[in-house]
Amino acid sequence: MLLSGGLDSATTLFLAKEKGYECRPFIFDYGQRHRREIESARKIAQASGLACEIFKIRFPWKGSSLLDAALRLPKPAAGSRFKVQGSGIRAGIPSTYVPGRNIIFLSIALSYAEAIGAQAIFIGANAIDFSGYPDCRPLFYRAFRKMAGIGTKTGVEGRPIKISTPLINMTKAEIIRLGMKLGVPYRYTWSCYKGGRVPCNECDSCRLRAKGFEEIGIEDPLTNL
Amino acid sequence: MLLSGGLDSATTLFLAKEKGYECRPFIFDYGQRHRREIESARKIAQASGLACEIFKIRFPWKGSSLLDAALRLPKPAAGSRFKVQGSGIRAGIPSTYVPGRNIIFLSIALSYAEAIGAQAIFIGANAIDFSGYPDCRPLFYRAFRKMAGIGTKTGVEGRPIKISTPLINMTKAEIIRLGMKLGVPYRYTWSCYKGGRVPCNECDSCRLRAKGFEEIGIEDPLTNL
Repeated sequence: MLLSGGLDSATTLFLAKEKGYECRPFIFDYGQRHRREIESARKIAQASGLACEIFKIRFPWKGSSLLDAALRLPKPAAGSRFKVQGSGIRAGIPSTYVPGRNIIFLSIALSYAEAIGAQAIFIGANAIDFSGYPDCRPLFYRAFRKMAGIGTKTGVEGRPIKISTPLINMTKAEIIRLGMKLGVPYRYTWSCYKGGRVPCNECDSCRLRAKGFEEIGIEDPLTNL
Repeated sequence: MLLSGGLDSATTLFLAKEKGYECRPFIFDYGQRHRREIESARKIAQASGLACEIFKIRFPWKGSSLLDAALRLPKPAAGSRFKVQGSGIRAGIPSTYVPGRNIIFLSIALSYAEAIGAQAIFIGANAIDFSGYPDCRPLFYRAFRKMAGIGTKTGVEGRPIKISTPLINMTKAEIIRLGMKLGVPYRYTWSCYKGGRVPCNECDSCRLRAKGFEEIGIEDPLTNL
């Protein structure tokens, strides 16, 4: 169970538990500028009564504003070229894109899953209200599943590890509505890329989150931090 | 350029150089029991006049005799069920299989390649005289290429990173013959999984190497260590 500390993966974790899976939250410490999300992920795992695995990995190369604090995070668009209606997020792949990030995360999770004999990997990827990352689209997950089935022992032996993306076609509002039903402790989640003391309310991630809470008319528990 | 310190990747490096690529050898320090191959890889890179990148990663989970010295390496088969004619290697996926290893290596190399603007990743994978790893087969590389094209920015933008496996359909003898022509310093390479002072001459990797040198009637420079 890939757990980032954000809304989507927290909701996915509670959904997988609801479905009866015995979950192992798997958290990546990859030098993200919003390191605060690691603490959030840990709290969410704790709230769901599960011990978590933290995997540390460092990419010595740069090229992403999510890894390199010297680069600027994308600013909301002033004009009309919005990727997500009402979000202010510019079209195109943003500078927060980390080359191959989800491919690496899934690959390592796949190794872990195979080593411990897990049946499935859950990831909270979402392709509706999202920032436009290529590794968040259903097409990518289909291709990854196929590759993983061919390239692993379990796949070759006819017991491929399931790669589950239950939120892939949901809007942020739908995700939050589902999470409220499941009792996801959204007060522990963290979305802001800046990772300060309070959310910046400007980055893509803050804006998508705000849009979701607004649409269902619920106040974000992080509003009054 | 994924460089392990073995015969195949050394030959691939010299082949890529011959084709005119400006190569960056990329070495994984992943807790392999034959750590000695890292030093070999470094020497091979040096011999080809290239600085190398060493990427350290640790898998806290076990499940492979290549990571866990408490597990036994596969013994040569006494009977007739040989995977590779004349090699003594048992049929099936051996215990040296590391869950998802080449998937992880390629994913990280893909991230690096995209970050530095590389055109191609070279890997010395081989599916003829090989140990039966699922992630060494042409089918796997086809699926990985497709997934990588869909899941990366360069792929989406129409400049997918090439994933090149020039040795995939060659026998060990053909690989060594090619390497001799290219001037690969095989004296620096290391194949033995045990990683002792001298090769064990028993593990799959030693046996495949011996078979290759035997077939072309050349003495392995490691014979008189």
